[in-house]
Amino acid sequence: MNVSTSRVSKNAFSSMERDAVYRAIFERRDVRQNFLAKPISKATLERILKASHHAGSVGFMQPWDFVVIREKKTKQSVKHLFTKANDEASQRYRGSKAKLYRSLKLEGIEEAPINLCVTCTRQRGGPHVLGRSTIRETDLYSTCCAIQNLWLAARAEGIGIGWVSILDYDALKTLVGIPRPVKVVAYLCMGYVKEFSLNPDLEKAGWRKRLPLEQLVHYETWGRKNGNLKRTAKRY
Amino acid sequence: MNVSTSRVSKNAFSSMERDAVYRAIFERRDVRQNFLAKPISKATLERILKASHHAGSVGFMQPWDFVVIREKKTKQSVKHLFTKANDEASQRYRGSKAKLYRSLKLEGIEEAPINLCVTCTRQRGGPHVLGRSTIRETDLYSTCCAIQNLWLAARAEGIGIGWVSILDYDALKTLVGIPRPVKVVAYLCMGYVKEFSLNPDLEKAGWRKRLPLEQLVHYETWGRKNGNLKRTAKRY
Repeated sequence: MNVSTSRVSKNAFSSMERDAVYRAIFERRDVRQNFLAKPISKATLERILKASHHAGSVGFMQPWDFVVIREKKTKQSVKHLFTKANDEASQRYRGSKAKLYRSLKLEGIEEAPINLCVTCTRQRGGPHVLGRSTIRETDLYSTCCAIQNLWLAARAEGIGIGWVSILDYDALKTLVGIPRPVKVVAYLCMGYVKEFSLNPDLEKAGWRKRLPLEQLVHYETWGRKNGNLKRTAKRY
Repeated sequence: MNVSTSRVSKNAFSSMERDAVYRAIFERRDVRQNFLAKPISKATLERILKASHHAGSVGFMQPWDFVVIREKKTKQSVKHLFTKANDEASQRYRGSKAKLYRSLKLEGIEEAPINLCVTCTRQRGGPHVLGRSTIRETDLYSTCCAIQNLWLAARAEGIGIGWVSILDYDALKTLVGIPRPVKVVAYLCMGYVKEFSLNPDLEKAGWRKRLPLEQLVHYETWGRKNGNLKRTAKRY
């Protein structure tokens, strides 16, 4: 690792380093299939978790914990939770959208060598966490930043990650023995993959399109487009 | 940028590329001071925002928008909101902690060339967003992942970012003209800096210590440490 032992980093990133960061960002995917059986070594897992742990956090609270799940039995139980939640979710769609929904592979719980549950302990750091008094959810936000760090680190290691949100997280807590005041933020499936698609699965499947970036950028006030006061259609 | 035009990426990251990704992760800081006056070019800002826009999102919802703020007057108004919220927040501490709190520089609103407000439009994509029916907050989580992407991309560009959460985000919405149903997730200050500290400001100031990673990693069930069923003290 390139972290110097001096107290500041003065060197700019080379263009190669910068490209590598962008490569990880653009080639990161939500991976739900084609996991290889190749195990993830302890050292590799620790590098990825260390990357996660070095996200910024509100008040330097570091509210995250990681539960590493490898046992087949636990995965089977989680898969059961997914199936139940997904059956319910699929009822929300009609016609061709319902058919498309049912065709999608939305988790890789049993195939992935490691499942990782990421939590947020909202009591950590006492009642007055610096910077959290105004926005109570900032501890959850910090945990998500930590998740993005691990997602990108994993991509650089050749490891795909899929975030499974179609789960009853309360039932999951009971299953994994997570204390009541701790909040589950993510359930991730992790494993090496042979290749990474350059487009999101849902884009490839025709579920939704990538929005043009310029639609999403406003200047000075909402709806103002690069100097032209052009109100966008009510797209929100 | 290194993104190939073929549909998949098969090449593993070189060790140099991997190191660069970890470098961005470990050298990213929450920057609140020492911003340089050097302007951020349109091309650079677009690269960073594009990186953000390429985060994963629940149901490929892409719920984020970005309001780019450069006008002095707007920054002054936001700074006023900060001062008000921070005066209130500082009342929560007593004794030496109160003194330390008041000594901390917690924002760089007026000094940073660009302020960026990142929002989440929770209505985007209709009422049934794939994967969000079970966990309603996943759209906010996606927005935070997008923020981490832009934070890391900025680091690779030599640009520091500070997240200001000590603000009344509702008052901010009025100030920036953000529609009522849209949620403000972050208010960021961005600018080039000469160097990046290798430790968080709050760690250096003695506010809180970095927690040992091994305390935060559990195996199979909460509290189980790498094979040994050793219950940790109730630290949450």
